[in-house]
Amino acid sequence: MSEVNAEIIAVGSELLGPARTETNSLFVTLQLNRLGIVVRRKWVVGDREKDLREALERALDLSELVIISGGLGPTHDDITREVVAGFLRRELHREARILEQLEKRFARVGLKMSENNRRQAMVPEGAVVLDNSQGTAPGLMIKENSRLIFLLPGPPRELYPMMTNQVIPLIKANLPVQPQYFRQLSIASEAESQVDSVAGPIYREYPLIETTILASAGIVELHFWWRGQPQEEEALRQLSELARRVKERLGASVFAESQARLEEVLGQLLRARSFSLATAESCTGGLIGKLLTDLPGSSDYYRGGVVCYSNDLKVGLLGVREETLAEHGAVSQEVAWEMAAGIRTVTRSDVGLSVTGVAGPGGGTPEKPVGLVFAGLATPDKTLVKRLTFAGDRDIIRLRSARFALDWLRRELL
Amino acid sequence: MSEVNAEIIAVGSELLGPARTETNSLFVTLQLNRLGIVVRRKWVVGDREKDLREALERALDLSELVIISGGLGPTHDDITREVVAGFLRRELHREARILEQLEKRFARVGLKMSENNRRQAMVPEGAVVLDNSQGTAPGLMIKENSRLIFLLPGPPRELYPMMTNQVIPLIKANLPVQPQYFRQLSIASEAESQVDSVAGPIYREYPLIETTILASAGIVELHFWWRGQPQEEEALRQLSELARRVKERLGASVFAESQARLEEVLGQLLRARSFSLATAESCTGGLIGKLLTDLPGSSDYYRGGVVCYSNDLKVGLLGVREETLAEHGAVSQEVAWEMAAGIRTVTRSDVGLSVTGVAGPGGGTPEKPVGLVFAGLATPDKTLVKRLTFAGDRDIIRLRSARFALDWLRRELL
Repeated sequence: MSEVNAEIIAVGSELLGPARTETNSLFVTLQLNRLGIVVRRKWVVGDREKDLREALERALDLSELVIISGGLGPTHDDITREVVAGFLRRELHREARILEQLEKRFARVGLKMSENNRRQAMVPEGAVVLDNSQGTAPGLMIKENSRLIFLLPGPPRELYPMMTNQVIPLIKANLPVQPQYFRQLSIASEAESQVDSVAGPIYREYPLIETTILASAGIVELHFWWRGQPQEEEALRQLSELARRVKERLGASVFAESQARLEEVLGQLLRARSFSLATAESCTGGLIGKLLTDLPGSSDYYRGGVVCYSNDLKVGLLGVREETLAEHGAVSQEVAWEMAAGIRTVTRSDVGLSVTGVAGPGGGTPEKPVGLVFAGLATPDKTLVKRLTFAGDRDIIRLRSARFALDWLRRELL
Repeated sequence: MSEVNAEIIAVGSELLGPARTETNSLFVTLQLNRLGIVVRRKWVVGDREKDLREALERALDLSELVIISGGLGPTHDDITREVVAGFLRRELHREARILEQLEKRFARVGLKMSENNRRQAMVPEGAVVLDNSQGTAPGLMIKENSRLIFLLPGPPRELYPMMTNQVIPLIKANLPVQPQYFRQLSIASEAESQVDSVAGPIYREYPLIETTILASAGIVELHFWWRGQPQEEEALRQLSELARRVKERLGASVFAESQARLEEVLGQLLRARSFSLATAESCTGGLIGKLLTDLPGSSDYYRGGVVCYSNDLKVGLLGVREETLAEHGAVSQEVAWEMAAGIRTVTRSDVGLSVTGVAGPGGGTPEKPVGLVFAGLATPDKTLVKRLTFAGDRDIIRLRSARFALDWLRRELL
């Protein structure tokens, strides 16, 4: 199996602090994945020779491609160029062309070039120099036996164009890259363990497909990656078959076969039917509206709604009856019903969606514990209510409640 | 000075894809830094035994503390527990107490526990079990000679409380950590560069204090760390003096000297004055309500509001006049004024807060470009409007708008 493995090493002590995420690797990964190259490991090391050497040694041990970002600057803690050359036992020589470019660059902005900057003109024996249109540090490519090592500058605005314009073509020219075959199923309102117990027996029949499960607050994603020989027909046949079989078992719970968000899929359904939607939110406090309006263009179908966090807004703005509140309490199927029907009427929308519940951590009782949620759905034909119980903290209960309501409406529109 | 080194290993093939950043390590790093522990390396490995073993082996080679996150879930690709136990040559046994808790948890939410979940009750010999209040996977602590290894669940909502409440005390009890002296200032509605140009000349007078600036969507945090000898009196004196001097210059922009969130500080002010608040949201679509109700107990002061994403809800639910909309458009100071005054009247609240703007990416015009936002604030005494311009994408513009409105009200209440 000729899979190309890559490792990404980010160099810089600032990346080991509490403030800075390493983000270059996401961009690099996306570019590599498109060539069918799998990122096997990511490393973040400080400006220490020992740690960078060890990372490089281990990375070359397993992978054909090593991409190192950062540590090419002019200051004394920028050690990447020297450490890599030392590890590979290659002499560094000053390249006149780079020095000239550096001098021109400094002259252009009217700054004096320091002795430190001259270090950036040092090139390991046999390395290919990658021009940096955005900064002073040139990139480098070193071939070591059948392996490729790239040294790229850390600042994203320097690394991104260098990656796209120079690194990718050089990888294509030097490594046996293959196209990548991938399928995804996105599932709502099912537990991760439930999805796995349904899908597991099926995907385990496909030893050439690698399956990953991602779960977060009511959404489960199944990722299927082809790991066999790069034969397009066979890969697509097996992936399609696997996705179809799993989808058949999970039915309407599958809301997308792409990266599309639940709100996006729901929005498409509402738009296709020219339905307008309004929301009445108690415990979610505006979260459903926030999720819907995260998407540009959501005003095509989402009209807005009422956040009725206090009971008198339920009465005053939605027409929930005081007797219903008194008799059943704010967290009840009766109130969820009147909220959904009320917001639909008040806003003259096609669909009204409501949520009321105990998000916690306080406010629970034996009859109405934390996690108890009622959702309501009013359409031109009917008004329905569901009773739900969610585990987790306040944030999770609220997010699950919001997603459940959106997913319920999606299923009703199928 | 005996410095404790730590390494953070994030496990999960999804973290090697192009979509998901590893963010747990930032939170973990912040907690460790407060104990004076330095993060030496970070690793991201997939669900592969060989790679996790190698990372663990190398990490233990250099560092006294290894924190592994992820791979404790119930599915077949969750391998952390088994790989770590195997590497350390410790037998796994099923712990009855965990199994019981898992069964209770599943019973409570009315789900059937799958065979896979039972794996989460497996504990390596000699390990300390860390309860997981937010999910099914317990954490584990293993002492190996003088080294500590923690296995923590991947989902942030499970990892964060476990880290704060259990891991930190266990580290303090088991490793030679030194007290850290630290101060924080949280600042709203100021640009990072503005904060730095005001604070920089002051903090640079304190060579024994290290200053870090963290900025995100309208909030800037200044972190001051004592880096001198661990003499409590001198550290506290210098830190207090520095914080006081910077605070004097930044004035009301400093909303907290702690981890408190802006919404929390605002909530305390509203509660102290027995003021009630209602919101009228257009471009933020419910986000302000969501932020306010993220906090338990917010019903003490937040009554709810209206998401008036469509113009006719502005008219129908808030009493914005049709002529105002026709003459000035939905994104105008006149409409923001009428929204704030309207929501205050309709909900009979003490304070009404409104936001209307162009969140983009579409919908901008030369006169009303993307990022133009109007906020309105109605109190018993007056109704005010502010015109704002925010840079960034849709998410950032919405979050900055919401935070600006909340911070404006906070300043008015001082």
